[in-house]
Amino acid sequence: MATISARGERLARARKELAERGMDALLLGPSADLRYLTGYQAPPLERMTLLVLPAAGDARLVVPALEAPLARDHLGGLDLEVAAWQETEDPVALVRATLEAAGAAAGRLGVGDQLWSAFLLRLQAALPGAAFAAASTVTRYLRMRKDPEEVEALARVAAAIDRVVDGLEGLRWAGRTELELAGEIQAAIRDGHDEVCFAIVGSGPNAASPHHVAARRVIQPGDAVVVDIGGRLDGYCSDTTRTLVVGEPPPGFQEAYAVLHAAQLAGCAAVGPGVPAEAVDAACREVIAAAGHGEHFIHRTGHGIGLEEHEDPYIVAGNREPLEPGMTFSVEPGIYLPGRFGARIEDIVTCTDQGARRLNTTSRQLRVVPG
Amino acid sequence: MATISARGERLARARKELAERGMDALLLGPSADLRYLTGYQAPPLERMTLLVLPAAGDARLVVPALEAPLARDHLGGLDLEVAAWQETEDPVALVRATLEAAGAAAGRLGVGDQLWSAFLLRLQAALPGAAFAAASTVTRYLRMRKDPEEVEALARVAAAIDRVVDGLEGLRWAGRTELELAGEIQAAIRDGHDEVCFAIVGSGPNAASPHHVAARRVIQPGDAVVVDIGGRLDGYCSDTTRTLVVGEPPPGFQEAYAVLHAAQLAGCAAVGPGVPAEAVDAACREVIAAAGHGEHFIHRTGHGIGLEEHEDPYIVAGNREPLEPGMTFSVEPGIYLPGRFGARIEDIVTCTDQGARRLNTTSRQLRVVPG
Repeated sequence: MATISARGERLARARKELAERGMDALLLGPSADLRYLTGYQAPPLERMTLLVLPAAGDARLVVPALEAPLARDHLGGLDLEVAAWQETEDPVALVRATLEAAGAAAGRLGVGDQLWSAFLLRLQAALPGAAFAAASTVTRYLRMRKDPEEVEALARVAAAIDRVVDGLEGLRWAGRTELELAGEIQAAIRDGHDEVCFAIVGSGPNAASPHHVAARRVIQPGDAVVVDIGGRLDGYCSDTTRTLVVGEPPPGFQEAYAVLHAAQLAGCAAVGPGVPAEAVDAACREVIAAAGHGEHFIHRTGHGIGLEEHEDPYIVAGNREPLEPGMTFSVEPGIYLPGRFGARIEDIVTCTDQGARRLNTTSRQLRVVPG
Repeated sequence: MATISARGERLARARKELAERGMDALLLGPSADLRYLTGYQAPPLERMTLLVLPAAGDARLVVPALEAPLARDHLGGLDLEVAAWQETEDPVALVRATLEAAGAAAGRLGVGDQLWSAFLLRLQAALPGAAFAAASTVTRYLRMRKDPEEVEALARVAAAIDRVVDGLEGLRWAGRTELELAGEIQAAIRDGHDEVCFAIVGSGPNAASPHHVAARRVIQPGDAVVVDIGGRLDGYCSDTTRTLVVGEPPPGFQEAYAVLHAAQLAGCAAVGPGVPAEAVDAACREVIAAAGHGEHFIHRTGHGIGLEEHEDPYIVAGNREPLEPGMTFSVEPGIYLPGRFGARIEDIVTCTDQGARRLNTTSRQLRVVPG
């Protein structure tokens, strides 16, 4: 958790960004934005919790009364009024009153990207003069460039997930289900993290489904297995992918893996200040396309990471935003042959003045386990 | 997971409800609504996934290409077109085209209550002629009354959490932190569930914070400890609360607990077909208020439960909706004395023609563990 003075500075920077971008207030529900600015890890439930942060004027954290003790505990000494609403009161009236007092009720309001639509609809009905936009149009400029403390938190959680990766070859793979392996891997993640976020274990043809959920399929000799895992430590997320083969690889796999490995190196090598995000994607994609696998790389190259697993900047064609020191994101090309096999290599990297700093440092060589 | 024919019937009922309520289409992202209707457990991520279900006309599940294999796998043989979009395509255009083909693009659209606001804002911009409302105004009539299979699924997961409750008195409490206890309890939940949803362990003054998160506080003789725990099994949720005391209870606690126990019994006894939801709340509240603790019962009496921990119907003052057989919800009064102690008793009950059927069946007597 950031110190009280760091959170105070973030709130001040958010107000400054609002003003500079012609916005009048942020309306943030339970989210990484809220945690980043205030330290409050609010439960994402059906009772409305909303930080009302005007560009100028008093801010207020509107919370259900039964969660007010939790909110005050997380805020610590942060200078922010907590406005608790009782079960039969209308929190939207509190939000509107706060905006009216700040002269922002008919202004341009940034609503948290992940705020539930049911809440946005109520806010829109109560604030007919306001114009709504996604809060990330403001908060991305606060959160995208990680400060040194954040980079070190991301390095620590990357080291924690790397220890899990180092243990993969010691597990028994052949003859066991994806679910069994995922269970053991989750237990290993739990050891070094505060929270398990996900454990994708996709074997054989399932490895060709990038967001496959571990299933009852029994892992067999000749399978490639994609292992994409992540957790959370002190608020920050890890995310890394390695691919294993069980015994003899399937036909065509080793050639595809060599291409993938070269592509991932090319992506990391492309990272640097001023480089457009899409150039990192293009660097990976060109290597894969040149080898004839262009149509088998069916997703973008990467995503930013921090308090969320996926956040700005996205490493995708069309994103011409220049990379800056502190931006931290995944480089994770994949090659997927439907019905046959899949492979992916993923590291988290931070953009520095000297290029990419890899936070995940385990070997990217193909791992072969007994068949 | 419901059978293909059950899901097909649910989709047909959803269309019928839409038509009867003068709505033109549902737009559902990753959510319990989506899972209930289609079986698809979509990852709630930043790429748009949206079921477009018109009252009349072709439905479509719009999914990112890399998740299309997962979606098809979950749908099984369900008759529903999957429209996959590539990373550089605009999924909103697919949604609009589907609505236009059904003549619903300028109609009344129900958007998933938990759909991210960033998606709703994009939909509103692309569909300026449409009027948006919360999807739950339609889907609640499908999901609120559980069918017999759902009640049995809820009874199974309630039995699983009751086994965890039965083990609580065997744990060591005094001298250990809330976090240590929460860790052991989570491991026990994991044993009988597919997923741990939450484990609130609030001791001493922390027990007076109903949504307290387990912390580093060391549990001491003389503490009351609120343990509120839940998980998920085969999609359905458990949720139960018991309160323990460590050694000698704090002054005033036993009297308050006796009142609470009577209130929870009164709430359960009030349940029956045709009874307004708020009458169950009032039954609990009257007992607590009569004993002088009215101001210490700071939350509603309960919430519906099913594929979500919290869903309709809410057992709260102002909800005059009559209970019906199959409605399943918590009865969980609490008494909280800030800075001193807190207590809560929670069972999940199903409304039947004969009144409440308790799904949680562990003793509601105060549990005393060694101090």
